[in-house]
Amino acid sequence: MIENKISSLGIRLFDTPPVSAGSYIPIVITGNLAFISGQIPIEVDSIPPKVKFKGKVGKDISLEDGQKAARLCTINALSHLRNALGSLDRIKKFVKVSGFVNCDPSFTEHSKVINEASDLLVHIFGEKGRHARIALGASSLPLNSPVEIEFIVEI
Amino acid sequence: MIENKISSLGIRLFDTPPVSAGSYIPIVITGNLAFISGQIPIEVDSIPPKVKFKGKVGKDISLEDGQKAARLCTINALSHLRNALGSLDRIKKFVKVSGFVNCDPSFTEHSKVINEASDLLVHIFGEKGRHARIALGASSLPLNSPVEIEFIVEI
Amino acid sequence: MIENKISSLGIRLFDTPPVSAGSYIPIVITGNLAFISGQIPIEVDSIPPKVKFKGKVGKDISLEDGQKAARLCTINALSHLRNALGSLDRIKKFVKVSGFVNCDPSFTEHSKVINEASDLLVHIFGEKGRHARIALGASSLPLNSPVEIEFIVEI
Repeated sequence: MIENKISSLGIRLFDTPPVSAGSYIPIVITGNLAFISGQIPIEVDSIPPKVKFKGKVGKDISLEDGQKAARLCTINALSHLRNALGSLDRIKKFVKVSGFVNCDPSFTEHSKVINEASDLLVHIFGEKGRHARIALGASSLPLNSPVEIEFIVEI
Repeated sequence: MIENKISSLGIRLFDTPPVSAGSYIPIVITGNLAFISGQIPIEVDSIPPKVKFKGKVGKDISLEDGQKAARLCTINALSHLRNALGSLDRIKKFVKVSGFVNCDPSFTEHSKVINEASDLLVHIFGEKGRHARIALGASSLPLNSPVEIEFIVEI
Repeated sequence: MIENKISSLGIRLFDTPPVSAGSYIPIVITGNLAFISGQIPIEVDSIPPKVKFKGKVGKDISLEDGQKAARLCTINALSHLRNALGSLDRIKKFVKVSGFVNCDPSFTEHSKVINEASDLLVHIFGEKGRHARIALGASSLPLNSPVEIEFIVEI
């Protein structure tokens, strides 16, 4: 059902979402909580897979591209969740979204960037998609990613 | 009972604590854990509500004002918790406090800023207020807030 | 059993791991989750205890020293866990590692720093050590520490 909703929004999940750059795994489930590792905007269906957006939001790339990056992080997270859970219908609700924006010290529009992730969750999951959140600035992010987002989900 | 303690400390909670700047909600409860969204020092009883303190701690504003900001974040979180739980007496204990300080790369006194939040929780809740914590520097924060703090609570 | 493994790797845990610099505690257990406070590379068996590595990774200190700092953070966390749990054999699995690297805005090798913590957990705990993770840059950290790492563990 959720996958139909995702398709109807013109979104395609990845069968093989980005692999981890280290000795960690994309998702750990403990009790009825799933902790999803920090996602960066890697596009796995480019050859080779690459970080689609790079640099500091508001400086190297536009706010709009930062938002697209946040959206791609979310799609990667959902792809990992589908793989780990078998079906996204097992998600009871989103608990927490932590969004980190790679930006200069003068940047103040973190909310606008991470809203793209939050809005997408609510569009797809409705009330179940409404989550607690933190958004803040990071002086730098792995691989010069503009955004990194982690998620906690109740299943 | 806890509310009496809060009153006795001369603290007044807000009936309508700050609303979210995006598609997220202030608190999500999963099992017996409540995740509170990152709080910034918005003063809701000013007209219009505004971020009471702004800028980088130790540069734009003093350490003392940074501490006041951390205190206001905590009061906002408690106000949200009271609204969500009906009563603060339902809190079994504080689990985790994550405190982010907007500051320059040379700043090192993050603990002193976030201690203001930690101390307040212990003053109000006693042993139940003692929590795990992380404190660190953010290169920037939403709306140029000097501090952002999130909380996890066991109910 | 786990302690034998740790000894066989030539690692010695601390009987009295670093104390908190504030009104918080090193570990809070809620249900079957243990939240460990952010650890910095304090060496408690130096006299007096001190932050063994200081400064920004890739600028003030080398990547290698940043990795050693991440390793020391992890050893401190394990020392706290042993004290809180009585035995590290009570750990069912590591759930989440959040690693913050003190660095310049141009730094991009956060993963290499925090891998040192992740690898150590997998070396010691095997499959149980495989965790979800986030790694990112902080513009500054408490006491000018190069790394700060927090952990969530299932017991």
